[in-house]
Amino acid sequence: MSEQVRADVLLRLRKVSGQVAGITRMVEDDRYCVDVLQQLSAVTSAVEAVSKVVVRNYLERCVTDAINGGDPLIYDELMRVVFKHR
Amino acid sequence: MSEQVRADVLLRLRKVSGQVAGITRMVEDDRYCVDVLQQLSAVTSAVEAVSKVVVRNYLERCVTDAINGGDPLIYDELMRVVFKHR
Amino acid sequence: MSEQVRADVLLRLRKVSGQVAGITRMVEDDRYCVDVLQQLSAVTSAVEAVSKVVVRNYLERCVTDAINGGDPLIYDELMRVVFKHR
Amino acid sequence: MSEQVRADVLLRLRKVSGQVAGITRMVEDDRYCVDVLQQLSAVTSAVEAVSKVVVRNYLERCVTDAINGGDPLIYDELMRVVFKHR
Repeated sequence: MSEQVRADVLLRLRKVSGQVAGITRMVEDDRYCVDVLQQLSAVTSAVEAVSKVVVRNYLERCVTDAINGGDPLIYDELMRVVFKHR
Repeated sequence: MSEQVRADVLLRLRKVSGQVAGITRMVEDDRYCVDVLQQLSAVTSAVEAVSKVVVRNYLERCVTDAINGGDPLIYDELMRVVFKHR
Repeated sequence: MSEQVRADVLLRLRKVSGQVAGITRMVEDDRYCVDVLQQLSAVTSAVEAVSKVVVRNYLERCVTDAINGGDPLIYDELMRVVFKHR
Repeated sequence: MSEQVRADVLLRLRKVSGQVAGITRMVEDDRYCVDVLQQLSAVTSAVEAVSKVVVRNYLERCVTDAINGGDPLIYDELMRVVFKHR
């Protein structure tokens, strides 16, 4: 990863940690289930946003190098990435 | 939430925090993108597992009380939970 | 299902059939892959919209009757429905 | 698409149409909601299976040609495919 991408990903991960800590407090405070569920969904969305940054980097670097190098194995790996995130 | 459910949820949230910290280290160590993506997917699955515990509690308590009490508003809320706030 | 819900679901299913027929023509006409993928995503969204109508009916009728009747088995079934659609 | 891929996709689309027709009959026969929902989920899975065939073809042909040709625009398109037009 480039320094810029790495910094972006690390910042986003720190935010995810903060969200999880926030949900912990909600549960300790016996907050309503649906509010907790909403925040859990927000964590899932935040994690997907991290994945997007990592996938973009993966496509522009690893996949590009592999295709330019004529590596036939990249397609199986790429299919796993694509259908893990659809 | 019952004490037992709360304890279960809090334990799971601690594990999610640990997973996120682990991914942070992977990114700092410049690990391969696909390995990072795999761990991000594991976090998403762990968060979904937390949601399952919360939803079960929500169905057995809040939804049951509301339906037994004839509260018509519960269905809109339940639909948001089912279709994950979409 | 009430007549109204049934009519709604049947109309939506007819539209889904039409969408699938449309994609068939696109593939026969050798249309660009990404256009075909976009229409396949539209079918998935249309099928989810059908599910929403059916789930709402299920919650208001079957789940309500089961909870009012004190049937403990409804919660396992309801969890399967909830986590199939999240 | 190659003839072989096209034939595969068209066969799968015919099966999807058959599944949708089957659900229509279930609704007309007033079958239990959960059974209908199960078949709707099967349609979603079948459509995803069609997408997999189309995506593989797209990666091996369109994406490979674009990357080998140094086309920078392919990455935005590929991200939309990966994250399913979200």
